[in-house]
Amino acid sequence: MTDKYIEIERKFLVKTLPDLSNAQKTYIHQGYLTRSSDSVEVRLRQKDEQYFITVKSGSGMVRSEREISIDQKQFKTLWPATQEKRIEKHRWTGQLNTLQTFELDIFMGELESLVLVEVEFSSTQQAENFQPADWFGREVTADKRYKNKALAMDHQAIEAGY
Amino acid sequence: MTDKYIEIERKFLVKTLPDLSNAQKTYIHQGYLTRSSDSVEVRLRQKDEQYFITVKSGSGMVRSEREISIDQKQFKTLWPATQEKRIEKHRWTGQLNTLQTFELDIFMGELESLVLVEVEFSSTQQAENFQPADWFGREVTADKRYKNKALAMDHQAIEAGY
Repeated sequence: MTDKYIEIERKFLVKTLPDLSNAQKTYIHQGYLTRSSDSVEVRLRQKDEQYFITVKSGSGMVRSEREISIDQKQFKTLWPATQEKRIEKHRWTGQLNTLQTFELDIFMGELESLVLVEVEFSSTQQAENFQPADWFGREVTADKRYKNKALAMDHQAIEAGY
Repeated sequence: MTDKYIEIERKFLVKTLPDLSNAQKTYIHQGYLTRSSDSVEVRLRQKDEQYFITVKSGSGMVRSEREISIDQKQFKTLWPATQEKRIEKHRWTGQLNTLQTFELDIFMGELESLVLVEVEFSSTQQAENFQPADWFGREVTADKRYKNKALAMDHQAIEAGY
């Protein structure tokens, strides 16, 4: 069990792909057993050759996140139950000139034209002072349609363009 | 994955405990990650020293049930997320004089006074012709309050007595 910590993140669309030659590529395939309106979020995730079940429950101050590793066979048994609630993407993890780590997600499948970049900060002040690089597009941090869960369950909700 | 088959079962309260000397005892501790109103049912179950995650989804003709075995460590990581949605019982599996198999559940914890017995049949005709033994109490087959999920999530819903 990992108690949920507070994440300070900003999320942006991507205007042009940056140089990714020093970034690390991970294949991510995730699907949800639950729907947005359910009382709990149960997610299956493949990260390259690793497989996980993650349970997120609660709200406000009492949110918690619990995750277990499972093997490929276990994953494949449950995976069909995530039908129509899936995301497939390559995540490129790299470093900005301003030294923060970025995670750039290039979506596949129905979301193929979508690219998002996320930067995590250790304080709200750092987050506020952040100067996005040239290749960053419009900020979508507060736009719930760009949350992974929303992207998985309601592909039509997002706009094209950056 | 096991596709859900049609179960023909009748469930009863228990007037007096029968002779269980030839019955097999199993400890069952199960909890739900989801709530009754959610779109899917995700259940954790310990059966003696075996541990499972079961996902039941769909409704009507397209119901499906998928189950994986997990180890004790995985179980313990996710178990806290089932808080207040749990059932603990001993299940005694035995044979009636009429040769059908019965499953008698003796509940523990908040449901301690509750004992239920279930008999599964291979046809509706067999189910209709079934003559309950003397120790069977009131039939609760159609009473949704006696479903495991309802018992786990709403202890107050059931009546005392048989």
